[in-house]
Amino acid sequence: MNAVQIETWRHRHANRLEQAKSAISARIPWSPFDDQMPAGILQLTAGTLGRLEQLIGTSLALDPGHETDLSLPEHGGECSPYGPMLNIRYSVETFASQADKALSAMRVWASLPHTVRSSVLLECVSRLHAQTELFTQVGMHISGHSLLMAYHANAIHAQARAIESIAHLDKLQSESRLNVEAPLQDTHNRRKLRRQFSTHPVGLSLIYTERTLPTWNGYASIFASLAAGCPVIVLPHPGAVLPLALTIQIIRDTLREAGLPPDILQMNASPDSQERRAAAQHPAVRLIDYSGRRDFANWLHTNAGQARVLAQTGGSSPVILHSTDDYHGLIRNLAFGLCSYSGQLCTSPRRLHLSTLGIDTPLGTIAPEQFGQDLTSAIDQLLDEQPAPSQLLGAIVNVQHYEHALHIPQERASQILRLGGPVEWPQESAARALSPTLLLIPPSSSDAAQDELPPPITPIYVHSNWQMLLDATKEQIVREHALGIALYAMDTHVVEEVERLAFEHDSLLSVNFCGSYYPSQCSIFADIHGGKDPYNSGFNTPQFYSGRLKWREKREETEVSV
Amino acid sequence: MNAVQIETWRHRHANRLEQAKSAISARIPWSPFDDQMPAGILQLTAGTLGRLEQLIGTSLALDPGHETDLSLPEHGGECSPYGPMLNIRYSVETFASQADKALSAMRVWASLPHTVRSSVLLECVSRLHAQTELFTQVGMHISGHSLLMAYHANAIHAQARAIESIAHLDKLQSESRLNVEAPLQDTHNRRKLRRQFSTHPVGLSLIYTERTLPTWNGYASIFASLAAGCPVIVLPHPGAVLPLALTIQIIRDTLREAGLPPDILQMNASPDSQERRAAAQHPAVRLIDYSGRRDFANWLHTNAGQARVLAQTGGSSPVILHSTDDYHGLIRNLAFGLCSYSGQLCTSPRRLHLSTLGIDTPLGTIAPEQFGQDLTSAIDQLLDEQPAPSQLLGAIVNVQHYEHALHIPQERASQILRLGGPVEWPQESAARALSPTLLLIPPSSSDAAQDELPPPITPIYVHSNWQMLLDATKEQIVREHALGIALYAMDTHVVEEVERLAFEHDSLLSVNFCGSYYPSQCSIFADIHGGKDPYNSGFNTPQFYSGRLKWREKREETEVSV
Repeated sequence: MNAVQIETWRHRHANRLEQAKSAISARIPWSPFDDQMPAGILQLTAGTLGRLEQLIGTSLALDPGHETDLSLPEHGGECSPYGPMLNIRYSVETFASQADKALSAMRVWASLPHTVRSSVLLECVSRLHAQTELFTQVGMHISGHSLLMAYHANAIHAQARAIESIAHLDKLQSESRLNVEAPLQDTHNRRKLRRQFSTHPVGLSLIYTERTLPTWNGYASIFASLAAGCPVIVLPHPGAVLPLALTIQIIRDTLREAGLPPDILQMNASPDSQERRAAAQHPAVRLIDYSGRRDFANWLHTNAGQARVLAQTGGSSPVILHSTDDYHGLIRNLAFGLCSYSGQLCTSPRRLHLSTLGIDTPLGTIAPEQFGQDLTSAIDQLLDEQPAPSQLLGAIVNVQHYEHALHIPQERASQILRLGGPVEWPQESAARALSPTLLLIPPSSSDAAQDELPPPITPIYVHSNWQMLLDATKEQIVREHALGIALYAMDTHVVEEVERLAFEHDSLLSVNFCGSYYPSQCSIFADIHGGKDPYNSGFNTPQFYSGRLKWREKREETEVSV
Repeated sequence: MNAVQIETWRHRHANRLEQAKSAISARIPWSPFDDQMPAGILQLTAGTLGRLEQLIGTSLALDPGHETDLSLPEHGGECSPYGPMLNIRYSVETFASQADKALSAMRVWASLPHTVRSSVLLECVSRLHAQTELFTQVGMHISGHSLLMAYHANAIHAQARAIESIAHLDKLQSESRLNVEAPLQDTHNRRKLRRQFSTHPVGLSLIYTERTLPTWNGYASIFASLAAGCPVIVLPHPGAVLPLALTIQIIRDTLREAGLPPDILQMNASPDSQERRAAAQHPAVRLIDYSGRRDFANWLHTNAGQARVLAQTGGSSPVILHSTDDYHGLIRNLAFGLCSYSGQLCTSPRRLHLSTLGIDTPLGTIAPEQFGQDLTSAIDQLLDEQPAPSQLLGAIVNVQHYEHALHIPQERASQILRLGGPVEWPQESAARALSPTLLLIPPSSSDAAQDELPPPITPIYVHSNWQMLLDATKEQIVREHALGIALYAMDTHVVEEVERLAFEHDSLLSVNFCGSYYPSQCSIFADIHGGKDPYNSGFNTPQFYSGRLKWREKREETEVSV
């Protein structure tokens, strides 16, 4: 171990660590990195490949410049939702051999003081941050992010999530280290009992990352497990390997520089679903983080009983419109939420609900049709204001969703308020980029919970009365597993009613967001994200962090030293 | 709700709550109740029924003096390991109807400020404490406790465990309640974002209690769940219903006095194993505490996927003897551990390991045979010193274990160092009370991990060398799921070696206990107990408490008030 190097890093990042630990305790939003895009990144456009060009069609090694086993099979075939085939290949070892290496690396990693792990990992985050431009481009070409979304969600906010996890684990491990001594009275205080408490990592940590927010979600788990002392093997979504591969390159490189075994962090990019399942059942795996589909989370819980499962599933956030003191703010806020990444986040506004009575506003009551037209105009205006649509819209990452939006069924024709369509992109004509489609669905013409209307289609449901609105929203929450609910209401009783609904279903409630903070946003170091279901676990809730540790105790009777 | 009454209780117990919260933070052993038996209890003997006499053969109602449904089926049939059939009957409702009542009661209980729950529950503990004499007798006649054990484990230490859980949940819920406000900059500070954080109970809590420590283990879970706001249904071991029934009587009575629905805490005493399993799969159950057999814990984990499972399984603690600076202290400490409750605790010394080289002591090297003789003499002397054997030994609660000890197989005759046998009891000749049997098992004559030698039989294994000793101990730890390891060693390397072994298997390590603090002891408010396996969870570790809560957040944009 290169102790001198690590000590330099500890000094370099000590202040950041203290700020992060204060932020998580007080839940005061804090940004370690500037939210404003620097000039260099502002010039990027979604269609251009930039630094990715040289990676196309290559075999990407996790340890460039180091010996690699050329006999390993390769997998790959990612394709940008903006058009280009990336066709990058990744060599894949067997999981069993990776698990052996991980356990061997753990012997070193777990035995370090947690402060050493924090210092090394904060240095890793700094190096990831230095590659922000690359990660911004990767966010666009892997997850179809808009420029702003890619800069935030795939780069600087993901890096902040990493720091958040390091801070939580640093705090937890510091507080859990305790030495308590007490004299033993029956020995006439000649002997004492010393209790030593400490934590240790639960063991090998398996992390399945997802497609739309591979780093933002992935970093929270990866850095939490690493900070706890667990070795990590990442199983990236087969369509989103690149952001993890680049991350792991940087971290392994830093570990090597610290004189630590790089196998503390490995990747298995096998796209084979049998192999992906078998990995979860490997007896050495003691912790599984998964974000994605609920059925796979259920499978893990039932079939990987040797491990703790921490799952983040579902999404789809309903919006309830009752009344507002800032109608224009409401419209602008919603229009932005629907355009940003073309509404593909699990926290994006999905399915809007209002009653036939419309929305009470200082301008008078706004009827549902009027609301639909106003929202349409606001979306058009917002897109007109953008220097390029790629700064705000996203490319549709799911091909079926893309096809769905291009072919709205004939029987819905009368419901269309705004028909989103292909957006002209500066470079690529094959981009699956679409602007939002809005449907106005009159009472009783549809079962809100059953409609298959994926983004960028947003249905606005008009309900005959308030109770039917609540019932339909509740059905959506249950069926689509809503992480959040956005509510616009001035009436205290209505807020309380929806609060009960949200809390009953463990959904984050966002009320009257009319400025430029959006219901889909989640302030790192402050907001709770996720945490539904018995085996789900939210960022910024205790179990997400403490679940990676076990508590140890040694009791020793000794002579009292004179 | 009787707010005046509850406020009185809050005042009455405020000091105790603060002391308990300090103790859990600092992990300084603290006793809310005096460990010394009061004169009245010192006069009790194991064979006498005392206050239990009037319960024999009765139907015990959980709500004496209140309406009960006489049409319900009854179950019962407990038998004291000291002889008498208790034959107390308990009426059993269907679990589904109990779950409905629990959810209805939860609406009130979960909505109270957590400080109200803490106050009510601390009052319940005071009332349980007032019945310490009764619970001491129950401990003897249900679990076969000795008098001292019953006073401690079934009464005052169980009550302390309850306070410990209340303190943990009070602290957690206080700290999680947070209101954070920040101005929204894009609205020129005219509007602000308010974040409100709170916790809420995960839902219906099912608690399976066990036979040897029904209250000590059970109270930790019951009071933690209740303090979190969960309604609780207790499923007692069919052979140990009484201590829970009496507890629940007292708590329901207190709830009624507080003007709160007594169905916050219910009991289902069905002995039917199918019904006991079906309860775990009821969709309303969100949390399951289980202490007992590992195979049932595994079944729960695989088959009750709708719930969090917190299990405490196994036991059997090996003792490793290498060297000591206080040989007489070592012998006395071990002798006491083997006699106390006749060694039936999961933390009692089970299987002693030493090498053919014997034990290094200030008196010279003690050969294995000499050690065996010294331990035998110490046990004899200790039993002679007792005013009555019932003050220290226990009755064997498991009938098969009792039969086993009475019929040591012929081929083991040469291994017998001390043949324990029936102890004369003041009252009851049918008591299954036995003093310890010691076997000295020479190298290679046995597979230490496979020997079926339940308490009160204790095998002393002599191993050919240190490595074989470590291997055999490790096998025992894995197979019998050791919660703790006791080590006697003066050599730092040996301590480090066994420390690695203990920590690798998540066992509590107790080193060189030679005074009157025993490896089987666990200081409430300080020591960790349990916490092995992914879904096991230890007392005094964060997950045991935080697992009962979920974290909520409401975010609201509002005008800044001028």
